[in-house]
Amino acid sequence: MASIKERALALFEKLHLEIFERLSAADRSASTRMDEWTHEQGGGGKTYILKDGSILEKAGVNFSAVTSRLSETLATRINTQPQNIFATGTSLVIHPFSPMIPTVHMNLRYLELENGDAWFGGGMDMTPWYFFDEDARHFHRVLKSVCDRHEPSFYTRFKKNCDEYFYIKHRNEARGVGGIFFDYLREDKEHSIHFVGDVGHVFLDAYLPIAERRKNEPWGDREKMWQLIRRGRYAEFNLLYDRGTLFGLETRGRTESILMSLPPEVKWEYDHQAEPNSRESALVEVLQKPREWA
Amino acid sequence: MASIKERALALFEKLHLEIFERLSAADRSASTRMDEWTHEQGGGGKTYILKDGSILEKAGVNFSAVTSRLSETLATRINTQPQNIFATGTSLVIHPFSPMIPTVHMNLRYLELENGDAWFGGGMDMTPWYFFDEDARHFHRVLKSVCDRHEPSFYTRFKKNCDEYFYIKHRNEARGVGGIFFDYLREDKEHSIHFVGDVGHVFLDAYLPIAERRKNEPWGDREKMWQLIRRGRYAEFNLLYDRGTLFGLETRGRTESILMSLPPEVKWEYDHQAEPNSRESALVEVLQKPREWA
Repeated sequence: MASIKERALALFEKLHLEIFERLSAADRSASTRMDEWTHEQGGGGKTYILKDGSILEKAGVNFSAVTSRLSETLATRINTQPQNIFATGTSLVIHPFSPMIPTVHMNLRYLELENGDAWFGGGMDMTPWYFFDEDARHFHRVLKSVCDRHEPSFYTRFKKNCDEYFYIKHRNEARGVGGIFFDYLREDKEHSIHFVGDVGHVFLDAYLPIAERRKNEPWGDREKMWQLIRRGRYAEFNLLYDRGTLFGLETRGRTESILMSLPPEVKWEYDHQAEPNSRESALVEVLQKPREWA
Repeated sequence: MASIKERALALFEKLHLEIFERLSAADRSASTRMDEWTHEQGGGGKTYILKDGSILEKAGVNFSAVTSRLSETLATRINTQPQNIFATGTSLVIHPFSPMIPTVHMNLRYLELENGDAWFGGGMDMTPWYFFDEDARHFHRVLKSVCDRHEPSFYTRFKKNCDEYFYIKHRNEARGVGGIFFDYLREDKEHSIHFVGDVGHVFLDAYLPIAERRKNEPWGDREKMWQLIRRGRYAEFNLLYDRGTLFGLETRGRTESILMSLPPEVKWEYDHQAEPNSRESALVEVLQKPREWA
């Protein structure tokens, strides 16, 4: 029987292709591109990009399988000694053009150290620019149901992790309406690989119906401006706090594949505030305190 | 006689106002705003913003004087124990609208620990989007001449520091054409405060003639696009590597005053490459290897 490492590789490569195919079917007008790349220390990956579609302004779907050297700093951060680390995973970020459709991110990964320690991690979170209660509920309900199929405590724990992880400290607010986030699943790998696979498979069920429902929602300059300003905070999170981004850059991953997560267009306006009692301030209120959605 | 701390405070407050006044005189069409703020742990500051002018798309000039608690992490980074740190300084970033006028940054600061250790630091660097040899030479000549008035070895050392500091590792290129950068000037404080004051005074002489010379240089969509994409790298540097930005956010400084350094508008396009033998690729070549300018 294949090792967990081999099965994880095969799973992520398959998910990568499936998600790309379903995504391009959902927006036939987007132009697509695929880059294969190798890592200087060993391994490589594939990046699909979809852009300038009627829904997708920019979306990137990565697969990678890379062996690299853990630096002193990175080793300390995960409580181990400097050694080689093997990492494989699939990650994606979707930046729709319309401010009415949320941005979404998913990442699933398997890591294995030279000393034999190995674990799964991942999650997904959604970042709306305008708040629709039913969208947040739909997203979380799909996630709760996949968690519940595996372990009753998962959703509550992983939802809380997600709220804590995707928090923009210097803005005192969440990046979005959250989702689930898990790491260091190292005990029962057989169970974990199934769970991770199921999370990957439901991703588009959690997201696409929302994109579909909001794609004809009207918007104008004001809404676009708000989206561009809020996207600035998305970029701040990824560059200041996101462990995957920092890990990728520090281990000399492929810069363009890592930073495909950054929004296609962003504005930073000094001290921009949402107008009181507006649709914009309604979003900010939601981001300032985590809620239960499912 | 006033202490070095009091004199540093007075110097930075004066520079802050002078630079703001000369800058608004240089672009009368820019709207201006001033915010005074206090820090939760003690002290505060003032932020001037100029925006939407014919030259200045967004410029911020900060003054701050803040006492905060050094965390374990920050203390380790500067080789000391957790304790209170007093920091005062002035910093500014100018983002012109025209892609033909470089973005520029300056920061001057004085830090004092509870244990009595204290030092000056600072510098300035220029980031053109299109390369004009005479602009880089002018900027560096002014800096060399102020350095030479104080100590013959300064310019060579501080120019090298600057090239090393403003390097975007994951892009394998410099942020711009550099300038000077110095830190931990702790030996002769009398000398250092004069040097720092002189650097502050020549800043606009180093920069304004360049803005003046380039403001009528023609440009179109292609040049604007290039500027927006290159500004993405500016944002990457500030959020990933800039010690001042990270120090400010970690010590709970005022977010809007710290992040005023981010460009007003940015684009991230996947794997954007300069056309071979173009004016854009000429800039990239300059950024890929540091040169001598003065």
